[in-house]
Amino acid sequence: MAVRTPDPDPADRDDDGARRGNPLGAGSFSSPAPRNAANPGWLSDVELAEARRRLPILYVEAVPVRTDGMGQVTQVGVLLRATPLGEITRSIVSGRVRYGETVRDALFRHLENDLGPMAFPLLPPQPVPFTVAEYFPMPGLTAFHDDRQHAVSLAFVVPVTGTCEPRQDALEVTWMSPEEAASDTLAAEMEGGRSTLVRQALASVGALR
Amino acid sequence: MAVRTPDPDPADRDDDGARRGNPLGAGSFSSPAPRNAANPGWLSDVELAEARRRLPILYVEAVPVRTDGMGQVTQVGVLLRATPLGEITRSIVSGRVRYGETVRDALFRHLENDLGPMAFPLLPPQPVPFTVAEYFPMPGLTAFHDDRQHAVSLAFVVPVTGTCEPRQDALEVTWMSPEEAASDTLAAEMEGGRSTLVRQALASVGALR
Amino acid sequence: MAVRTPDPDPADRDDDGARRGNPLGAGSFSSPAPRNAANPGWLSDVELAEARRRLPILYVEAVPVRTDGMGQVTQVGVLLRATPLGEITRSIVSGRVRYGETVRDALFRHLENDLGPMAFPLLPPQPVPFTVAEYFPMPGLTAFHDDRQHAVSLAFVVPVTGTCEPRQDALEVTWMSPEEAASDTLAAEMEGGRSTLVRQALASVGALR
Amino acid sequence: MAVRTPDPDPADRDDDGARRGNPLGAGSFSSPAPRNAANPGWLSDVELAEARRRLPILYVEAVPVRTDGMGQVTQVGVLLRATPLGEITRSIVSGRVRYGETVRDALFRHLENDLGPMAFPLLPPQPVPFTVAEYFPMPGLTAFHDDRQHAVSLAFVVPVTGTCEPRQDALEVTWMSPEEAASDTLAAEMEGGRSTLVRQALASVGALR
Repeated sequence: MAVRTPDPDPADRDDDGARRGNPLGAGSFSSPAPRNAANPGWLSDVELAEARRRLPILYVEAVPVRTDGMGQVTQVGVLLRATPLGEITRSIVSGRVRYGETVRDALFRHLENDLGPMAFPLLPPQPVPFTVAEYFPMPGLTAFHDDRQHAVSLAFVVPVTGTCEPRQDALEVTWMSPEEAASDTLAAEMEGGRSTLVRQALASVGALR
Repeated sequence: MAVRTPDPDPADRDDDGARRGNPLGAGSFSSPAPRNAANPGWLSDVELAEARRRLPILYVEAVPVRTDGMGQVTQVGVLLRATPLGEITRSIVSGRVRYGETVRDALFRHLENDLGPMAFPLLPPQPVPFTVAEYFPMPGLTAFHDDRQHAVSLAFVVPVTGTCEPRQDALEVTWMSPEEAASDTLAAEMEGGRSTLVRQALASVGALR
Repeated sequence: MAVRTPDPDPADRDDDGARRGNPLGAGSFSSPAPRNAANPGWLSDVELAEARRRLPILYVEAVPVRTDGMGQVTQVGVLLRATPLGEITRSIVSGRVRYGETVRDALFRHLENDLGPMAFPLLPPQPVPFTVAEYFPMPGLTAFHDDRQHAVSLAFVVPVTGTCEPRQDALEVTWMSPEEAASDTLAAEMEGGRSTLVRQALASVGALR
Repeated sequence: MAVRTPDPDPADRDDDGARRGNPLGAGSFSSPAPRNAANPGWLSDVELAEARRRLPILYVEAVPVRTDGMGQVTQVGVLLRATPLGEITRSIVSGRVRYGETVRDALFRHLENDLGPMAFPLLPPQPVPFTVAEYFPMPGLTAFHDDRQHAVSLAFVVPVTGTCEPRQDALEVTWMSPEEAASDTLAAEMEGGRSTLVRQALASVGALR
């Protein structure tokens, strides 16, 4: 695979802070979005790069799934994504939690960015992720690796009930069976340990054999 | 409160085995329901009573909830129920898992029995309950008590999206805030430790203060 | 592999009910063990066989692990077991919960039976298993299969700090790396879906790649 | 109670970065600690204050418990702590995760800081917290509040087997029953929502009534 690790957060353009808004405790209860000048949570590219060298960055990740009428997972949604370097890679929904944003709001925002506004994700009532994935810039410390930063990611399985129309740099959502999603073939197309994350997601819903 | 413990499973009339059907591995994958004669999982009242004196009986329980668009729990559904002795008590969805029935199918069956066919419950993708409640005939061993049997219950939080029209002996579903559901006032109206179960359910979704 | 499914519970000789004792709510708080005559939870072979045809039977299972000083799983213990038919198979700790016995006490009893009295298992404070495994007599309904019965198993990861000296029909405990424990090679030596259970156990502790 | 929210992290003096060391992926696998100059994860007071206004800060928290031989929680450890303003408050183990540090290492470091080197905590094999607590500077958004920052905390129940001798500003560890730990009396002595966290911890181990 590619030498460069994937960008786990290409949708998270911080310069859209003012456009999509993120006041303190924002999200669904949001009041009008503040201007950049008023929002200390907005970070310039330089500032974000600096923060990434100094602090663990909080992420959320989601493995989108389809379920049958009984709640059993039948399919897993995998994103086809173009990295900033133009490589094509398989990934899942992933992005940074902003200052003042709840984990739940960040999860919803990144689901919408990556799956489109008609995906109708069903966020779980529980605040607890199926795993906590720790990405380090130096490979080998954990199963996860991100050469840009030390990121700690809360990873969730999220049933999706609508139609997925990826926006931004997620090119396509491919729905596959749990077996395919756990296969070595798919693993070879995922980077940074995302294949491990998908397998752990499947295990958490009893769909890993 | 009443001296007799509640019947945690009044809806679970085993003589309806043939009517509602429960072949091996039934539920959503069900083939036509067998007759009693052909279904070893059907138990007469005498046989069930005997089993209850000899084996731990597997139960499922569900705390129905309403969630907002972000998955956060906003309301808890509590059943008003008449016990076989004619007492009125507060309870949650509860019932036995039958021979050959999956936990998921049992959960769905009891939700439908207690909340009606239009409740549209969203069963969780995860097979893991928020707690395992152990009911003993002798009070005080655990927080849970059932003078009829030793029951081990897998308890789930289940978001409900439709309209609840209780059937059988569940008289009514009352929707209340998490605060009310966790209150001592409500606890005094619940038996067998169900108030503990509701509080643990609330804690599992981050809604217990 | 063998055509017959493994006996998931060979240590659970119910005729030892009086010897090892199992009064109501017994275990560590146990008063003197009752005689068979006085203990309705004691089942003859015929009675147990009958129950297994009529009710789901509650089981506990444990994947024994070694952890480093930071709690991270470093090794997985797999049992070498002789089935009643004399076949050698790989398995994990497994057994029935008896009438009047807590899940915790059953877990401890089976750990001691299978790993010996010097294993010093550290039972988790949480009552929630990493998965609920549903074994059906008919294969293919779930990942799990047991031709003797419909068993529902609460499965736990249990760190073991002492020395394992298997008793009864568990011949040996083999300690292996998480990678070996998740391998297809080991899976081929396990029956009834136990390899799936081991992989789900590893996923739950972040040790599945 | 006091008008000022508690300092959830008084032990986390960042100027001790060089002393206690925190190289990338440090902890148990640590190479010699780098000097401040070489460690971008070291933050001056000014830099940390700035980061706290711009990014959610990742925390770990631990509710120390004593368990019986069967893993059941019997006691909860609550810290008596002096805030920077000299107020006495009740709290739990809490602190920041540093750049390059695993969650597990951060948990261990803060347990050692607050309970002393002879506490012998048993870190759980699972990476998943019992809850994710979100602290916002503005009160009321969640159950948790910290006027210094937006902190996201992974909260764990940690059995402690040794002797606790608090260091730094944790004055004392008080062991109390689950009932006392969940009481309104104790809640009145805790700040920032820590009483909610303790109740959720108790619920997760089946010890909340």
